[in-house]
Amino acid sequence: MSPRPARRPPPTPRPRSPGRGRARRRRRGRAHRSRRPGARRGRGGSPRRARHTPAAGRSAAPGRRPTRPASAARRPHHRAPRCARPRPCRTPRPAGRRARRGPRSRRVVRRDAARIYHRIMTVVGAAVPSIALARVPDGAPRPEDFVLVDLPREEVADGQVRVRVLTLSLDPYQRSTLGGRHLGDAPVGPGGLVPGRAVGEVVESRSPEVAVGSTVLAETGWRAEAVVPATAVVPVVVPPGVPLSAALGALGMPGLTAYAAHERHLRPQAGATVVVGAGTGGVGAVAGQLARLAGARAVAVVGSEEKAAIATDRLGYDEAVLRGPGLDGALAEACPDGIDGYLHLGDQATLDVVMERLAVGARVSLCGLMDQYNGAAPTRLRAGAVMAARAEVHGMVVHDHHDLALDHATRVAALLASGELVTVEDRCTGLADAPAAFARLMSGTNVGKVLVDL
Amino acid sequence: MSPRPARRPPPTPRPRSPGRGRARRRRRGRAHRSRRPGARRGRGGSPRRARHTPAAGRSAAPGRRPTRPASAARRPHHRAPRCARPRPCRTPRPAGRRARRGPRSRRVVRRDAARIYHRIMTVVGAAVPSIALARVPDGAPRPEDFVLVDLPREEVADGQVRVRVLTLSLDPYQRSTLGGRHLGDAPVGPGGLVPGRAVGEVVESRSPEVAVGSTVLAETGWRAEAVVPATAVVPVVVPPGVPLSAALGALGMPGLTAYAAHERHLRPQAGATVVVGAGTGGVGAVAGQLARLAGARAVAVVGSEEKAAIATDRLGYDEAVLRGPGLDGALAEACPDGIDGYLHLGDQATLDVVMERLAVGARVSLCGLMDQYNGAAPTRLRAGAVMAARAEVHGMVVHDHHDLALDHATRVAALLASGELVTVEDRCTGLADAPAAFARLMSGTNVGKVLVDL
Repeated sequence: MSPRPARRPPPTPRPRSPGRGRARRRRRGRAHRSRRPGARRGRGGSPRRARHTPAAGRSAAPGRRPTRPASAARRPHHRAPRCARPRPCRTPRPAGRRARRGPRSRRVVRRDAARIYHRIMTVVGAAVPSIALARVPDGAPRPEDFVLVDLPREEVADGQVRVRVLTLSLDPYQRSTLGGRHLGDAPVGPGGLVPGRAVGEVVESRSPEVAVGSTVLAETGWRAEAVVPATAVVPVVVPPGVPLSAALGALGMPGLTAYAAHERHLRPQAGATVVVGAGTGGVGAVAGQLARLAGARAVAVVGSEEKAAIATDRLGYDEAVLRGPGLDGALAEACPDGIDGYLHLGDQATLDVVMERLAVGARVSLCGLMDQYNGAAPTRLRAGAVMAARAEVHGMVVHDHHDLALDHATRVAALLASGELVTVEDRCTGLADAPAAFARLMSGTNVGKVLVDL
Repeated sequence: MSPRPARRPPPTPRPRSPGRGRARRRRRGRAHRSRRPGARRGRGGSPRRARHTPAAGRSAAPGRRPTRPASAARRPHHRAPRCARPRPCRTPRPAGRRARRGPRSRRVVRRDAARIYHRIMTVVGAAVPSIALARVPDGAPRPEDFVLVDLPREEVADGQVRVRVLTLSLDPYQRSTLGGRHLGDAPVGPGGLVPGRAVGEVVESRSPEVAVGSTVLAETGWRAEAVVPATAVVPVVVPPGVPLSAALGALGMPGLTAYAAHERHLRPQAGATVVVGAGTGGVGAVAGQLARLAGARAVAVVGSEEKAAIATDRLGYDEAVLRGPGLDGALAEACPDGIDGYLHLGDQATLDVVMERLAVGARVSLCGLMDQYNGAAPTRLRAGAVMAARAEVHGMVVHDHHDLALDHATRVAALLASGELVTVEDRCTGLADAPAAFARLMSGTNVGKVLVDL
């Protein structure tokens, strides 16, 4: 999965001095409130939990499980909510409201202030809060590798539009642009804006083609708003009852990746066994459901019991197996006739195990190299296993498959609308939380498509 | 390239005691002469050199280079001829006839005696000289890993035929049956007959389908004759002017491997660049010529300057590059637009270099893992390189492509007959020389298809 964001060089960020930010907050901070109801729920160390958004109709059907997975209810209350802080707290907090009254660390205070400041800046339009790279991550990225900065607000020239970001998409490919290892993408060095795609609202337009108020997809980068060419934005179209954010997930680039891998690389037949390397991720969740809908036996490889439950209960996988030392035995049990299709989105160890269990004529799509993106040794696959299975191994780069975009949009939108295909989203609120959400994504602890609502 | 010989368990060999062999030679040895003229040329430490058999017509064309490569003429005379001995001699011999008068080592004497004995046994039909595995080779096989044994002469039952071996084919897949690592083939342990395919003459038949005197292909193993089911032999058909042995090379299993890899995996278009990992070997020589005939730029990876000359001068490759540390630079020069097709028949280092130079949309056929057959670490390929090139990697097992056999036979026979496709053969004489020839094949020092004439 390797999208190629717009190649415009990122504007030079102006790192904000702590003193200046504080001064602004003193001047303006307390006078403003968010325009969006509920936005303030996100502050104070208790932002919203990850929301799992089912497709309309499916969860409402009688006799079905409730929308929220059972495991979510089991989650101990002292565990830090998903987007709250870079690290989960170490000691259990007392129950009830007292938890909110405890001392808050300087970091949490600073982050909350940053979030408030960012909302103000968005509203008053004085500057554009953005996330820049502080340093090239060493291994899996950490929140400290990023910094919230103010970018000067750009003017809108002829043929351009200003897009206010509503929801930002976080994707694994972004990791490999940090340090410049991603295929064909401009590398992002320290101080550079992190690239990213978002659903946004056009708030200013100097193009007759794009109306103010329209909802569009745009390559904005990680910032509150962006001025982009009118030709580079795409109207967001989702079926009734499906959230706009689906345009970034099942109907967006991850969905197209899954669709193309399914249609062009895996091509499972009824009765075949398809293994998806990260079964509940943004790409994997769609691919697994497409395989199931094609009549294949779909098996998810996941990183936790919680994800296994989501895979089988919500996404309809026939089986879910846990990554790690027991994977080989679990796969042997889950795939007694071997593996006919494998979508690789995982790590070296998973690849090694799966390759040895391929059935003759297996088809493999190499779609994501999560550990390698984090700087691990290059992922390699055993040639003898490819030969033994007479396998066909494909490298997946989504840009090669844009000719499938219309097919994909039509098919997946219909499946979403009918509830045959559901989405799992891992959302948090506030640009300041994007680094922590990204760190979670790149360590594989997200569940579903990772989105940041602004 | 992974043929699957007939699964009959090899007859238990009866290792010959040195005394018994010597006694027989005393009794019968000197009374017989070979029935085939020229066969005695092979004895005495100076057997025939490797013969390079061009297709009729091609080498005879005016202005072309002579049949024997220039390098053969340059070879210093003191170098041991290809099939003479397991190791080349260490000290230069004096020139001229004196070389034959020098003292002969006990090993040479013993080997010559074995060859004479083998021919006698074949003629008188008292036993069947055969090559058994003495021990499972550690790494590349050596001649000492094999032993010449007598097998009891079997009776021909109803529906069986007795095939006298004329030419035995040596192939890399045989290496991995030694010790039992080959795909689906019965493992060969110490004492077991080494499997192999041969062109032979039917000398006894209890089947109305197969006439005595007919020339057939059969899975005989490494022995002078074999009793096999009549249904398991295939009549040898070669175009006029083409040697019968072509049925074991360009028209046989290596040729079908190359043809299938060309037609189904590489599918080069005019102007594409195809790299062949062992460009002058049994499979590679055919694949390279098919690529050239399809209008592709064909580049051979070879192990010596001698082979490079054969690749470009005889086989028509556009370029030949040497394996080893300089390969990357040489490939960069030979393939300025990247590599569109790669037939892997080589080693890990070659694979590593080639994979990094694949063009977008490249097609790779994993056809032989020479170093791995010899017990090296499993060959692995970098997943990121597959993704970067959006490559399609296929595992080649020739049995999957027998439906192409008629196409292959028709097309390649026509090309051989017209001289558009030539064969390069590395032949030696006498079953006793098979182990040394096999060791040469598995160390990559052969030039062309390795054959043993009996």
